[in-house]
Amino acid sequence: MHSISSVAIVGGTHGNELTGIHLVNNLANDNYSLPDSLDYRFLIANPDAVATNTRFIDVDLNRQFALDNLTYQEHSLYELNLAQIINRKIGPKDNPHTDLVIDIHNTTSNMGPTLIVLESSDFYRNMSGYLKQQMPSCNILVEDEVSYLEHPYLCTCGKYGVMLELGAQPQGVSRADVYAQSVEMVQHILKFVELHNQQETPEFKGFEAYRLLDVVQFPLSKEEKLLGLIHPALQDQDFKPLKPGQPMFSLFDGSTVEYEGEGTVYPHFINEAAYKASAVAFATADKFIW
Amino acid sequence: MHSISSVAIVGGTHGNELTGIHLVNNLANDNYSLPDSLDYRFLIANPDAVATNTRFIDVDLNRQFALDNLTYQEHSLYELNLAQIINRKIGPKDNPHTDLVIDIHNTTSNMGPTLIVLESSDFYRNMSGYLKQQMPSCNILVEDEVSYLEHPYLCTCGKYGVMLELGAQPQGVSRADVYAQSVEMVQHILKFVELHNQQETPEFKGFEAYRLLDVVQFPLSKEEKLLGLIHPALQDQDFKPLKPGQPMFSLFDGSTVEYEGEGTVYPHFINEAAYKASAVAFATADKFIW
Repeated sequence: MHSISSVAIVGGTHGNELTGIHLVNNLANDNYSLPDSLDYRFLIANPDAVATNTRFIDVDLNRQFALDNLTYQEHSLYELNLAQIINRKIGPKDNPHTDLVIDIHNTTSNMGPTLIVLESSDFYRNMSGYLKQQMPSCNILVEDEVSYLEHPYLCTCGKYGVMLELGAQPQGVSRADVYAQSVEMVQHILKFVELHNQQETPEFKGFEAYRLLDVVQFPLSKEEKLLGLIHPALQDQDFKPLKPGQPMFSLFDGSTVEYEGEGTVYPHFINEAAYKASAVAFATADKFIW
Repeated sequence: MHSISSVAIVGGTHGNELTGIHLVNNLANDNYSLPDSLDYRFLIANPDAVATNTRFIDVDLNRQFALDNLTYQEHSLYELNLAQIINRKIGPKDNPHTDLVIDIHNTTSNMGPTLIVLESSDFYRNMSGYLKQQMPSCNILVEDEVSYLEHPYLCTCGKYGVMLELGAQPQGVSRADVYAQSVEMVQHILKFVELHNQQETPEFKGFEAYRLLDVVQFPLSKEEKLLGLIHPALQDQDFKPLKPGQPMFSLFDGSTVEYEGEGTVYPHFINEAAYKASAVAFATADKFIW
């Protein structure tokens, strides 16, 4: 098992998700004591997007870290160049000098504090188990539908990489309760890293986790106009079971669209503002004991 | 008392406040039956901002309707020209051909369904009383610190003009519960207009209302950096009493800033995303029986 010596803590990958921006600035100003056995780099990933309070300037930075994108070349799109710069700073992705990247995000959905891991190896299972033990309100979401290196996320620049997703919080707003959760999550993760380095990771019995399945689109007309909204019975019910026959959308014509899948799923990212452009209403997950 | 024959229902004055945009589109598509004794105009005020899902392109459209701005002249700022166009369509402000403008907004603050009136005359008092009677969850906010015509708001293009403010809803998100409140508010207001025209407005005993007092700024460093967030005890407590000595801000250094005013005030627009740029943390109001 590799030991973790360098950790990059990243905020502002999306410029209107304020929690990580405030946290990284405060960590850089030494407002919190962090385990001193580790080397830290604090990074505001997309300062131009932060300055304009937008998710991105040209394209979503957090989808530009596919290996093919990171080979040096000039791009006309701001975030494609930025991804190369960040990859040189904290990567490179195929041979990184940063051991762990923690990238902090917010969502307008009611996902609560969520750790997203991209692989189901022992390291991530132990981190998830420790976090769940220390902070039971956290949700664990595994997105291992492709391999770690195939993911296009910024955190995959590191040898290990995770995302924190904290909500519900509107874009451009910073809530003190959500901020406090981010501080707590980062402190637990760093404590876990110390235990991991000392080979003192506790044993964990099985714990609850979710695995990404699919996305569900908003109902659209032939002209691609929105026909309705998330049903009130589903709104804010992230990580709660959605069963076939239960209401999913409330249409403007007064009718209701029910979920018609084959079995129970666990919706999340319900009504996430950033996914409106692609008409994604929510993602679904399976629940499992990890 | 003037009779009301023409009503403009406006959404998309801010392009990322989705409730009014959906409502205006659905009204224009005849999805709801409205009193047929009135003439309607349905307007998406800032289609370019709607298309880009931003509050505005150059400047806030809802601050460009001061009389001086509306005299014809070429401007380099998009919304200054747009204000003149809208003023010709539904104004002109000094001699309007629209009797009532209803402009629909969202806020990230937890203000619930709120009617904002800009004058305390009988017409607005009766409208407010009727709305409060029919839909007691509504808040009534009077902003009469300057005269109706001195306000720079789009709705002042009409002989009468009001704003609906609905929250909490993130920018770029549309919640079914908030949308349903907007439908209900508009229906009650139009029913009131019919009663007013028939001189059948009921008598109202005094009812609860709020009057705008002031705004409170976020704590900033000398370098204008944000020093903290809305205190968790104040977050979401719009229109609840804030007394001297109660917590107001939670600073990143761990300390708390208390409210130090002379008496109880009623905060609203608490943590409104759009006011971050001017470092406004919330507005205050007096509560009174109208």
